[in-house]
Amino acid sequence: MAQVLTFLGKGGSGRSTVAIAAAKKLSGEGVRVLLVSSDPSPAFGLILGVNLEGDPLNIGANLWAVQLQATHLIEKAWEEVKQLEAKYLRSPTLKNVYGQELSIFPGMDTALYLNAIREYNTSGQYDVIIYDGSGDLTTLRMLGIPENASWYFRRFRQVFRESDFGKALSPFVQPVSAALFNVSWSFDDFAEQPTQEVTSLLDQGKAALTDPKQVLAYLVTTEQASAIAQAQYLWGSAQQVGLSVGGVIANTGGNSGDLASQFAPLTVTPLPRTTGDDWQTLMEALPSLQNPANIPQPITIDVSARQVRVFLPGFDKKQVKLTQYGPEITIEAGDQRRNITLPHPLTGCPVKGAKFQDSYLVISV
Amino acid sequence: MAQVLTFLGKGGSGRSTVAIAAAKKLSGEGVRVLLVSSDPSPAFGLILGVNLEGDPLNIGANLWAVQLQATHLIEKAWEEVKQLEAKYLRSPTLKNVYGQELSIFPGMDTALYLNAIREYNTSGQYDVIIYDGSGDLTTLRMLGIPENASWYFRRFRQVFRESDFGKALSPFVQPVSAALFNVSWSFDDFAEQPTQEVTSLLDQGKAALTDPKQVLAYLVTTEQASAIAQAQYLWGSAQQVGLSVGGVIANTGGNSGDLASQFAPLTVTPLPRTTGDDWQTLMEALPSLQNPANIPQPITIDVSARQVRVFLPGFDKKQVKLTQYGPEITIEAGDQRRNITLPHPLTGCPVKGAKFQDSYLVISV
Repeated sequence: MAQVLTFLGKGGSGRSTVAIAAAKKLSGEGVRVLLVSSDPSPAFGLILGVNLEGDPLNIGANLWAVQLQATHLIEKAWEEVKQLEAKYLRSPTLKNVYGQELSIFPGMDTALYLNAIREYNTSGQYDVIIYDGSGDLTTLRMLGIPENASWYFRRFRQVFRESDFGKALSPFVQPVSAALFNVSWSFDDFAEQPTQEVTSLLDQGKAALTDPKQVLAYLVTTEQASAIAQAQYLWGSAQQVGLSVGGVIANTGGNSGDLASQFAPLTVTPLPRTTGDDWQTLMEALPSLQNPANIPQPITIDVSARQVRVFLPGFDKKQVKLTQYGPEITIEAGDQRRNITLPHPLTGCPVKGAKFQDSYLVISV
Repeated sequence: MAQVLTFLGKGGSGRSTVAIAAAKKLSGEGVRVLLVSSDPSPAFGLILGVNLEGDPLNIGANLWAVQLQATHLIEKAWEEVKQLEAKYLRSPTLKNVYGQELSIFPGMDTALYLNAIREYNTSGQYDVIIYDGSGDLTTLRMLGIPENASWYFRRFRQVFRESDFGKALSPFVQPVSAALFNVSWSFDDFAEQPTQEVTSLLDQGKAALTDPKQVLAYLVTTEQASAIAQAQYLWGSAQQVGLSVGGVIANTGGNSGDLASQFAPLTVTPLPRTTGDDWQTLMEALPSLQNPANIPQPITIDVSARQVRVFLPGFDKKQVKLTQYGPEITIEAGDQRRNITLPHPLTGCPVKGAKFQDSYLVISV
């Protein structure tokens, strides 16, 4: 398994430049690096100085680069969908629909990117994957797919089972599945089999995301107030998907001003101003990226104290909402929702109180 | 109906600043403007100098601003889904799932933003809606939703009807719908009724997008090579969703260099360098945005010459792919696919040849 590194920050703060410098630095140290850009325009290739393609290209010792293209990725994914259909369906319906004609909806690209990263990750060919994505909430939502998909699965499965709709449909499952599928399913195991593979993938994704040895983000900012505000916002928002943030890279011309206090306890590394192709200076200024110190845990649950502590830097109390409409606790912050299932014996316990203290939301149940 | 204006360009090229200056300029001329930001972080509010909220806020004469929040929008949308379900379903299943607990997948946010813009548009309260979105492919994919959703509908509906799957399912539709729905549907009108409303919405969206009086984009670039490359790429990519591009705003400190030749026949407007809150200088430098001249049509079909001319600036022949796997012609460029149904009597005709000429893909059928 590789480690995925990504950079979060405002557009124009120098994320792509930092990503490239990081790739050059690590590959120079003998680490096998794949640099992945989600920008399909020629802009990334221009900064890198190489014409990229939809498949990884070797561009230096231990260094590969790829420019993700949703139209390319959907063709491969569609073949897999067809194979899955052919495996389960008595008479496949999708064989006359071609991956080459499928257009891309918002979100399909993002899901395809995550799948591509997953495949590069399990290929065993790379030690580090540097993902230069949109660097904003879209990247966080992408990394949050496994967590959120699991939630939708378990929530709507339960709703469906308990509903009159599910009960009314139940007698039809057996005859329909006998007529359509290679296997005959009863209501209880209907969709169990094909989703099992998916569930296991989601569990792997969830485990990877919360382990900084597997997925780690850095914030990139300039000295501009709006760039700093956005980096702080993304720091808090990253916690909402369980993503560890390892530090701050400050594109400030060597000056770190009072950034250290604004991002404590993270380490702030100021970069010197460089011009053109002076990658060496940037590479030397970058911190060691793979094993940062002082990363607060996104969430800790103390069963005996009946307390949940959620790290939410960059937000104040007004920007965080706590609700318990469904069976889980929902934390809303950074335009994201995180649903938390409490471990036994706290499962299903109502929230008794919550306070916001030193960047932590402390919930008592 | 309002006119939707949006700005496309590389992150950091000054899109948000231009959007704000445009909003101030137009509202100053008596046009009722709603400024819409898709950035949920405090960054946009910092540049604007106002704390924004999830609902439009009056921030000056004829000027309103709103910061779209997917978590806020999904609550409203979910209530509508529930109402729709209650209308058609004998026994609703979703009543115990709350909008407040739903997490946001990639793409859901984008679809919710488009729906919000549509609602502001039809409210009659605004003459111009300035959308400051991600300004990249995500914005284009958002605007392409009506076109692509229509395509998926008609393609998969046909596949389903002709498939053994559809035929095998057919005998079950009547008893299932009798058991579950308020109305009893036969196979042919199954799902016809609920989708009719959607189809009409999609048609409205498609019509709006291809009419520059209703939706219009401007490119924003600096003098950086990567920013220019991205603007050119987005110019071509905009054509792929049928979006008209009205001109180029150059954040180059008054200089437009050879941008005019790189973006001909568009008008390039250079902006002076400003500092801090000098909005007046920017407002004066901006062109009149609502009725630009010299906009090439994204697509023209000449039935008698059996010719389709597709405007694709910023791409060369290698970057454009033409296929005809399915029943329509598929044009792939800018990591997007566009499926074109030819009008009668060219419908279903095979492609005889294609050439790339002066930024136009000329297809003979």
